[in-house]
Amino acid sequence: MVTHKVTFHPSERSIRVDQGENLLQAAMEAGIHINASCGGSATCGKCKVRLLSGKVDSPPHQKLSEEEYRSGYRLACLTSVTDDIGVDVPLESQVDRSVLALKGDRGSARYLLSPKDIFQLVRGWDVDPTVFKRYLELDPPTLQDNKSDLTRLINGLAKRHGIEGVSADFRAIMKLSRVLRDSDWKVTVTLVLTKRGYKLINVEPGDNTRQNYSIVIDLGTTTVFGQLLDLNQCTVVGCPDGQCDGTTLFALAEASDYNAQISYGEDVITRIVYSQKPGGLKKLQEVVVGTINGIIEELLTMSGVDRSLISHFVVAGNTTMTQLFLGLDPKYIRETPYVPTAHFVPPVRAVHLGINIGDHVHVYIFPMVASYVGGDIVAGILGSGIFQREALTLYMDIGTNGEIVLGNKDWLASVSCSAGPAFEGAGIKFGMRATRGAIEEVGINPHTYEPMILTIGRAKPLGICGSGLIDAVSALLETKMIDQNGKFHRDIPTERLRNGADGYEYVLAWKEETRLQEDIAINEIDIENLMRTKAAIYAGCKVLLDSVGLGFKDLEQVIIAGGFGRHLDVEKAIFIGLLPEIDINNFIFVGNGSLLGARLLSFSKDLLKETERISLMMTNLELSNHNGFMNEFIGAMFFPHTDATAFPGVMKRLQQPGREESSLKSAGVVS
Amino acid sequence: MVTHKVTFHPSERSIRVDQGENLLQAAMEAGIHINASCGGSATCGKCKVRLLSGKVDSPPHQKLSEEEYRSGYRLACLTSVTDDIGVDVPLESQVDRSVLALKGDRGSARYLLSPKDIFQLVRGWDVDPTVFKRYLELDPPTLQDNKSDLTRLINGLAKRHGIEGVSADFRAIMKLSRVLRDSDWKVTVTLVLTKRGYKLINVEPGDNTRQNYSIVIDLGTTTVFGQLLDLNQCTVVGCPDGQCDGTTLFALAEASDYNAQISYGEDVITRIVYSQKPGGLKKLQEVVVGTINGIIEELLTMSGVDRSLISHFVVAGNTTMTQLFLGLDPKYIRETPYVPTAHFVPPVRAVHLGINIGDHVHVYIFPMVASYVGGDIVAGILGSGIFQREALTLYMDIGTNGEIVLGNKDWLASVSCSAGPAFEGAGIKFGMRATRGAIEEVGINPHTYEPMILTIGRAKPLGICGSGLIDAVSALLETKMIDQNGKFHRDIPTERLRNGADGYEYVLAWKEETRLQEDIAINEIDIENLMRTKAAIYAGCKVLLDSVGLGFKDLEQVIIAGGFGRHLDVEKAIFIGLLPEIDINNFIFVGNGSLLGARLLSFSKDLLKETERISLMMTNLELSNHNGFMNEFIGAMFFPHTDATAFPGVMKRLQQPGREESSLKSAGVVS
Repeated sequence: MVTHKVTFHPSERSIRVDQGENLLQAAMEAGIHINASCGGSATCGKCKVRLLSGKVDSPPHQKLSEEEYRSGYRLACLTSVTDDIGVDVPLESQVDRSVLALKGDRGSARYLLSPKDIFQLVRGWDVDPTVFKRYLELDPPTLQDNKSDLTRLINGLAKRHGIEGVSADFRAIMKLSRVLRDSDWKVTVTLVLTKRGYKLINVEPGDNTRQNYSIVIDLGTTTVFGQLLDLNQCTVVGCPDGQCDGTTLFALAEASDYNAQISYGEDVITRIVYSQKPGGLKKLQEVVVGTINGIIEELLTMSGVDRSLISHFVVAGNTTMTQLFLGLDPKYIRETPYVPTAHFVPPVRAVHLGINIGDHVHVYIFPMVASYVGGDIVAGILGSGIFQREALTLYMDIGTNGEIVLGNKDWLASVSCSAGPAFEGAGIKFGMRATRGAIEEVGINPHTYEPMILTIGRAKPLGICGSGLIDAVSALLETKMIDQNGKFHRDIPTERLRNGADGYEYVLAWKEETRLQEDIAINEIDIENLMRTKAAIYAGCKVLLDSVGLGFKDLEQVIIAGGFGRHLDVEKAIFIGLLPEIDINNFIFVGNGSLLGARLLSFSKDLLKETERISLMMTNLELSNHNGFMNEFIGAMFFPHTDATAFPGVMKRLQQPGREESSLKSAGVVS
Repeated sequence: MVTHKVTFHPSERSIRVDQGENLLQAAMEAGIHINASCGGSATCGKCKVRLLSGKVDSPPHQKLSEEEYRSGYRLACLTSVTDDIGVDVPLESQVDRSVLALKGDRGSARYLLSPKDIFQLVRGWDVDPTVFKRYLELDPPTLQDNKSDLTRLINGLAKRHGIEGVSADFRAIMKLSRVLRDSDWKVTVTLVLTKRGYKLINVEPGDNTRQNYSIVIDLGTTTVFGQLLDLNQCTVVGCPDGQCDGTTLFALAEASDYNAQISYGEDVITRIVYSQKPGGLKKLQEVVVGTINGIIEELLTMSGVDRSLISHFVVAGNTTMTQLFLGLDPKYIRETPYVPTAHFVPPVRAVHLGINIGDHVHVYIFPMVASYVGGDIVAGILGSGIFQREALTLYMDIGTNGEIVLGNKDWLASVSCSAGPAFEGAGIKFGMRATRGAIEEVGINPHTYEPMILTIGRAKPLGICGSGLIDAVSALLETKMIDQNGKFHRDIPTERLRNGADGYEYVLAWKEETRLQEDIAINEIDIENLMRTKAAIYAGCKVLLDSVGLGFKDLEQVIIAGGFGRHLDVEKAIFIGLLPEIDINNFIFVGNGSLLGARLLSFSKDLLKETERISLMMTNLELSNHNGFMNEFIGAMFFPHTDATAFPGVMKRLQQPGREESSLKSAGVVS
């Protein structure tokens, strides 16, 4: 990929970006504030910059006069970087360096691993899929040798491929005789390794071994993600010594959709409540299967893979989602003492659940640890490799719930804290999920209190998503617009701070810049909800560490998973006290850890066994029964924390001259 | 049971019979000929006898004058024995002793084992059913111990009952949480031992261990038999040292019906042909399941057992019946080289096949050896105990096909010969199955050529069944009405021998004595068909013995199975050359061997393993590929056989003075 150097003047700050990068985004990443309150949708016209050198791709706009355009002025949000460039940022947009200290020189998102690196978190496994195909040319029967078709096939597998002890699924037996003869005794069989040995699940005419695919599903409360994998690609591409180098493990296709159960409840608790109504469980099961079927259609269409070639189906989800998907009454998940129906669910025929896929395909369900530590977490632990490393690692999956796992190759302990759905938009006045139009990045000029916001898809703002919320609160705190209790200082000289219908609020985008009929703002109730969420997660981590006599200082690695993690700015998360203040080089984002584990499992029999071991090894700590949790939670209801010693770096930044002592002068904005 | 002594005069022959025994039947068993050509239905009035001493229960009849009745004359067919009696048989009915030599003094049917004896054919097994229930009282979960319901249950099984490595069926998991709580954590679980370990298939509230039932099905081409077993009865009744004494293994209820597939073909070949028509396989599967469901209803009604208490379902059938039942295309069973789809079929959920029984019940299918040696034969070998004895044994299941197994505990070899359906009534002009009105026993007076026939149910004759056919041909041969080629001597002085529409025939019953509009007769074509059948079976036995270098003289035991065997008279079967001429004390009839084995399997895990061993141990010899078979078959197309040395005893009887040399005088019939 071609990259270009973008140098911002007069700060002389520079950043390398990919060809075609949006200039507003580049400024955000470089820590350069450019006023922008329409999310980058070319509405507010505030992100005016002047091109000093190099070329860009940037159209004229009504907010720029012809004269300005001729002089090199451009709207940053409309500008694609196509060259090494120098850009002059207007004085009123610049921010003093001190505020940007932490962005530092390390470039953006160093803790985001490349897909290749992510796959290499788990080592020492061979590509040897759980569901695999073998080609067989059998001797046709004769009167001297007329054993049954199935015995002939099973003997052939032993003789030609050394695979012993195979049992057969009844549906494979049903078509066996015809397929063997139609194909002149040259067939491809599909086998699956189960806990009880190999099982023959399909037989196809001819040599079809090169076409073996898997679908993996991350069954989330809000969103369902699916990927289609070519189980042969790794070996076809070539792995030295059968060791996969990771780069070939990408999905052929990816698709996602909202879990259609959302109509019946935003979170697991409301879903469980709905499931107790007459017909409720059946309805929830049907609609989530509908969502999954839609994803399957999309994956098949995108990849051009025929439905019949899908051999394996892996589902990782939290315990409630898993039980609802299977039609297992989740009632007791919600009631104390919070007991799931099963930790291990045997493979279930996919068509039995209503999944529109070959009738030989069985669904592998990731094992579950507890009512609130599900298969998605086990998958994440598998995918992130914690189970095989010495390093003491904290794994955090931040969503509606915060599931946290601590441990290493020898032991694993987990907690789940009801973080609330703030990060997913619920409980926040203008909250929304991380989709097009969601404000995902926010900066605030500490002098003018003008915002710089970026939306997903550079669309006119529709609301604010989890990462935008953290960014906004972090910026409000940094600019001292709010105090450590999350309350606005009422005397900030900006029209964006006002006493609205729901109390004091800061306007991120004016009505005319949005797709709404009103201004988009963040209020004190929103901030309190975020504080509750971050406090629950931090307290969960703390209690988990305490329970084994360890502290944050002992952590050698913190792995953050969840779609949310992808957009999360670690420094800002530390700044508000969501994440502990430890060396940021110890943080890794793995993205969707659940899908990652599901993908690995598809590719490796050994990891199937490891998955079981992980789930058995994990000890769950019930927070509802934990005396210390509420104390820790209350202690964390402060930005960053009531225990200032736990956040020395943040405290130092907060103790810098505030808006009263500071002045625009020091930043050179005014002379 | 009270028995009485019946003495026939003037022969002074006596026999002990059960209270209420029919006098005509008693005469037949004693070898006393009494003319009777209406099958015992009180129509012909020929079975007139005179009571000399004792009392009987016998009504007057229009064929008896008042004077005759006062003088002690009774119709034997209407007479029930209720006392020790003396009976005078009219001169014209008596037969000389020489003819009856073989009936001898050994009493009737010594080779018929009692049910208790039959069960003791297999030794050394513990009553330990494959499907069993265990009661568990579990500790309810707490916040300190909130593992999943399934894990709690499985741990409980290990702790309380020492049962390890249990996997769970998904349907059991589905209701687990509710049942555990509804029953206050006191439940009964149903477990099944599979080849791959224990599987939990059901969970019920409370202690239900005393109610555990099995249904076993003998799936025949013509008839389907079912039995309902109490899997606990043995232990409840008490078996010393856990060894069952056999007497407690009787079925609670028995039921049978014609296989409804009969409408689509009389034998396996025509069924296979039908299955190849569009929708044919589905239709055949549906109708046989319909038959089975009818039998289940009857068993449940008879026994009063609730459907939900049936835990196990065992099916033994020939390979074609098994495949049709399962919906497995039987096409290749019929085509050379005669390959079945599978020898072992995994347990299939009963409801999946349409069987109206609890959805936790799995169908155990007896393994099959070859296309024409099916699970019914494997079950028979299991039930008859051959697999554990030193003695060289020949096992014959005589039905539409003749399946023959030779061997002992170390080896087993099988053949199947297409015997044709003569024994089941097909291919015989007045042939019928062994149901009410079928002539099942036949004697012929060698002097008068008058018949003595008994029908099933003492009903007016409708036709002749397999055992009646053998009896009739044996009698025709003994009386020298037919020669050893099965052709009638044309000059027999009786109106019963005549040249009918289908050639020469012997009239067994006149039209007015039957329920038909015509006389019931046996013709030369019928006799030839019987000869083909007996020749095929005999040749099959011979070839099987030859193949291992043995002869009939080496046989230490011959076990005859099949519903047919129950009515078969061994001496008559030897006389026509159907069975080899060996010591008749070596013959054992086990009745329905298939049901016998299925019943044993239900009661014993060990025998489940033995069943698999039996099927793997058995080597099948394909007769269609065997050079010697046709020669042996042709050699056997003679009564008893072209090799007279193989039947010295029969030859001696045949060489006794024939009708020309004999005279009524020697029998004392005429002076």
